[in-house]
Amino acid sequence: MQKGKASIEFESPPVILSDASIAGKKEGEGPLGACIDVVEQDDMLGMENWEQAESAMQKKAADLALEKGGIRRREVRYLFAGDLLGQLIATSFGTVDLEIPMFGLYGACSTMGEALALAAMTVHAGYADRTMAIASSHFATAEKQFRFPLAYGNQRPQSATWTVTGCGAAVVGKADKAGDMKNTPRITGVTPGRIVDLGAQDSMNMGAAMAPAAVHTIRQNFEDFGVDETYYDRIITGDLGEIGRKILLDMMKQDGHDLTDIHMDCGIEIYNNEQQDTHAGGSGCGCSAVTLCAYILPRLRSGEWRRVLFLPTGALLSTVSFNEGKSIPGIAHGVVIENG
Amino acid sequence: MQKGKASIEFESPPVILSDASIAGKKEGEGPLGACIDVVEQDDMLGMENWEQAESAMQKKAADLALEKGGIRRREVRYLFAGDLLGQLIATSFGTVDLEIPMFGLYGACSTMGEALALAAMTVHAGYADRTMAIASSHFATAEKQFRFPLAYGNQRPQSATWTVTGCGAAVVGKADKAGDMKNTPRITGVTPGRIVDLGAQDSMNMGAAMAPAAVHTIRQNFEDFGVDETYYDRIITGDLGEIGRKILLDMMKQDGHDLTDIHMDCGIEIYNNEQQDTHAGGSGCGCSAVTLCAYILPRLRSGEWRRVLFLPTGALLSTVSFNEGKSIPGIAHGVVIENG
Repeated sequence: MQKGKASIEFESPPVILSDASIAGKKEGEGPLGACIDVVEQDDMLGMENWEQAESAMQKKAADLALEKGGIRRREVRYLFAGDLLGQLIATSFGTVDLEIPMFGLYGACSTMGEALALAAMTVHAGYADRTMAIASSHFATAEKQFRFPLAYGNQRPQSATWTVTGCGAAVVGKADKAGDMKNTPRITGVTPGRIVDLGAQDSMNMGAAMAPAAVHTIRQNFEDFGVDETYYDRIITGDLGEIGRKILLDMMKQDGHDLTDIHMDCGIEIYNNEQQDTHAGGSGCGCSAVTLCAYILPRLRSGEWRRVLFLPTGALLSTVSFNEGKSIPGIAHGVVIENG
Repeated sequence: MQKGKASIEFESPPVILSDASIAGKKEGEGPLGACIDVVEQDDMLGMENWEQAESAMQKKAADLALEKGGIRRREVRYLFAGDLLGQLIATSFGTVDLEIPMFGLYGACSTMGEALALAAMTVHAGYADRTMAIASSHFATAEKQFRFPLAYGNQRPQSATWTVTGCGAAVVGKADKAGDMKNTPRITGVTPGRIVDLGAQDSMNMGAAMAPAAVHTIRQNFEDFGVDETYYDRIITGDLGEIGRKILLDMMKQDGHDLTDIHMDCGIEIYNNEQQDTHAGGSGCGCSAVTLCAYILPRLRSGEWRRVLFLPTGALLSTVSFNEGKSIPGIAHGVVIENG
C-alpha cells in the first residue's frame, strides 16, 4: 500500500488488459512505425480541423483498445484522460461519445503516467473492475497552441522537440485469477511526481526543464521501493530528448547511479532524427502513450523485459507563463510495470 | 465500494480535516463575505500579473488549511489540484512550493468535485493518510483567457456569469478513530460524472450547457445509492446560475423529483446580483470551492445540515472550440458529504 515517502505498492497488481496506439504519417515512418496499431496517412483524419482530428484519434484508440481486448464500453467504469491543449479540448470532444464517467487530467506530457497511476489506484482499491487511461497530442494542434502558425515555417533550434501526432489508450483492470495472466503486464507500483522548478526558461529546450523532475521521481522510486537501477530492465522517460537524456544521466551519475545502458526515452525512440529532421526527439502526451502501447507493452508481454519504470515527463508551461517570463517547472509520474 | 453503475461508497468515510477559503474584494462584499477566511482587498495580491495573483491564492489557501488543521506540509501525501487556465498554469506555480506529489486536474468549474472525489478515493484506499484538494479561479485571468480584455468594457448578457476570484483548499484524511470526529464532515460516497453534450453553443449562457450534466449525475447518484431528494438536506450545484437552476429544476421535475426547496447553487449564493450586477451568478472553479469551505462545511459541522450532495459543474469549452463553432459539453462530479 503506502510505500516509503511518496509511492504506492499494489499487493494485487492491476493488469493492462488491452491497449491501442494510433499515430500520424511521420510517426509511421519512424523506427516504431511497424509496431503502431494504426498509422493515419491523413493527419486531419478526414475532419474539419486539427482539434477534431486529435479528438478522433482519442476515440479511435479507445475503441480499438476495447475491440482488441474484447471489452465492451459499459464494462469500463471510469476514464482517466488528457491532452496538451487549453481546457483539454481534444479530450472533451474525443471521449464524449464513450459515455463513461471521466476524470480530466493535465500533466503536460506526463499525462499518460498520471492517467495510468490513477487508473491502477482505482482498480486496486476495488472502485472499478476496468478503467481506461488515454493521452494524446497532435503536432498541428500543439504548434497552434504553443508556437507558430504552421505556414510561418519558423526555424527550430537543435534542442527543440517535435510534438508527436498520436494517441495511446490502455485498459487497466483487475487481474483475473481464473484466467491466464502470465503474459499480461501488471502495474505493481506508482511513484507520483512533484513539481520541480530549477528555473529553466527556454521553451525550445524542454528536455532540460524536465530532466530534474525525472531525476527526482527516479530517486524517490529507488528510495521508496528500496531498489536501484539493477532492479529494472529499462527506465523509460517520456520525452527528454537527446539533451534531457544527457542531463538525466549526468545527474544520476552524481548520485552514483549509472543509467546509461538501461535508460530509454520515448522521444528518442519514436523518430529517426537523421532521416526525419526532428532534432532533439519527439514530445507531447502522445509520445509516451504511443511508445508505451506500441513498443513497451509488447516487450513486457514477450518476456524480453521483466520490469520497467515508465516515467512520462511534463513541462509545465503555457504561452501566458512564457510571455510573462516565468520559468518552466517539470513533473514526472513513475509507473512500475512488470510482466506475467 | 462499487455502488450501482457509476458510484463509489466509502465504508470508512474519509473526513475533511481542515479547509480554507481565500477570495477577492467583490466576493468579500457578497452574501458569503463574512464566512470567507481571507478577503483580499487587492485582487493582484501584490503580484506582477493576474496569473501570479491566482497562484498566490492557491498557496495561501493551502497553507491556511494546513495551519487551521495543525497539519504540516509533509503530512500531506498527495495533492489534487486545478484551475481554469490553459495548461493549469495557476496551479503549477501555485503548488510548486508545497513540494507535495501532485495530480493536475482539469474539469472546468467542476474541478473541486473531481479533486475531492480523487482525494477521498485515495485516502479510503489507504494510499495516503492525508491528501489535499485545491481549486481556484480569478475573474481577471478568466476574462483574459476566455473573453475580452478587461479595459474593453464589453456588455454582458443577463445569462452570463461572473468568474469568482477565489480559492478553496480542503485537507481530506483518514478518520481518527481515537479522536472526536463528531463534528467533522465525512465524504461517504462519490458519483463521478460523464461528459454530457446536448448541443448548447452560447458561451454567455453556460448554465444551460451544464444543467443537463448536473441532472445526469443527480439521477445516477439517486439510482446508484437508492435514494432521492428526501435523503439530502441540500443538493448543491457549482455554478448553474439562475438560468441553469431553472433548467435543472424543470428537468428533475419531469423525472418526478421536486428539488425546489433543497437545491442550492454556489453561483447564486456567492453574489447579490441586484447589488453587485453579476447577472446570472458566479462561476469558475473557485466558486464552488470557496462556497464549500466558507459556507457548506460550516453548516455540516454545526449540524444545521446532515447530508449534502455537493455537485460542482463544468462547461467544457475553450476559445478554440468556441471559434470552431463547437458545442459546449458539460460535466458534474457528485460528492456526498455528511456530518459527524
